[in-house]
Amino acid sequence: MPSTKDLPAERIILGIDPGTTIMGYGVIRCRGKSQVELVEMGALHMSKIKDHALKLKRIFDRVSALIETHAPDDLAVEAPFFGQNVQSMLKLGRAQGVALAAALAHEIPVAEYAPRRVKQAVTGSGAASKEQVAGMVQRTLKIRTEDMPKDLDATDGLAVALCHHYQLATPKMQRGAGGWKAFLADNPDRIRK
Amino acid sequence: MPSTKDLPAERIILGIDPGTTIMGYGVIRCRGKSQVELVEMGALHMSKIKDHALKLKRIFDRVSALIETHAPDDLAVEAPFFGQNVQSMLKLGRAQGVALAAALAHEIPVAEYAPRRVKQAVTGSGAASKEQVAGMVQRTLKIRTEDMPKDLDATDGLAVALCHHYQLATPKMQRGAGGWKAFLADNPDRIRK
Repeated sequence: MPSTKDLPAERIILGIDPGTTIMGYGVIRCRGKSQVELVEMGALHMSKIKDHALKLKRIFDRVSALIETHAPDDLAVEAPFFGQNVQSMLKLGRAQGVALAAALAHEIPVAEYAPRRVKQAVTGSGAASKEQVAGMVQRTLKIRTEDMPKDLDATDGLAVALCHHYQLATPKMQRGAGGWKAFLADNPDRIRK
Repeated sequence: MPSTKDLPAERIILGIDPGTTIMGYGVIRCRGKSQVELVEMGALHMSKIKDHALKLKRIFDRVSALIETHAPDDLAVEAPFFGQNVQSMLKLGRAQGVALAAALAHEIPVAEYAPRRVKQAVTGSGAASKEQVAGMVQRTLKIRTEDMPKDLDATDGLAVALCHHYQLATPKMQRGAGGWKAFLADNPDRIRK
């Protein structure tokens, strides 16, 4: 329940950091501007899967399962737009594509954020280290140290979910976010043309 | 109905040539080795859609609709593995990813073919022009000239479907094709690692 009439109602955000080796993910529940809590976090490890198509299927299945379990209002994706070579970008594009498609299949609006923007939103610095991001995610979501994962992929997923929450919590965003088209119309800077 | 007990039963193949501006597609019905007929062909034009995410949604929706309409046994995708720059490959990878995801969502096995391989299979030459490919597709599927589309995107979709049919019609392939894993296990060369 929102704490004041000006704040948005409860909102579930699924954050994904899709890669072809590891996909980090996190789900948060937000009430108003400042109440955020952890719902789930995890990382899908695919380094032992040699077949690229099977990796894509795992990504699609996991994102679909997360959507069906948590019924998020939004999917937020960390999406690098540049990379080292065309081969790796084709594979990354496919991984992003299947994660996005799982959201499209469930008619869930998608927001994309460049890695630098996620770091900026969560820590205040676009040049923050993965450890700094993880530390701020832990503090913001009040995660006990013993519950923190050893690798930082799950916290990357939570970070992009938090980044999206901060974006939505601005006055401009509170007006929008009414479905896919309205969402995109309100957020032209979110999606690379 | 198969003409002899050695030939596979009727099989529907959906062929897709996914791009970020135009997606060509074609559906064929195959009986045995040599009986192939046109079911549907078309092209989804997206040049006027400025938003990349909306293009992805259109691709996903169309591929999903084609799968729901025709219940294909296989999806065959024309998939270039190399391109000019990382930006275009990321976008192409996403377009391929959502098309593949539509098949994954319906548990349909996917086969990928490089453009050169499609041309080779359909015309006998990997260096054939788009017009030569279209001409051979027209002859093979007995499409009347007045029914041929002006642009050659739909015939590219049919060409990859035909390429997959020829691949399946070899003795080795008749043994396989029993689900996603068996299909991949039988066709390691189809999917780029």
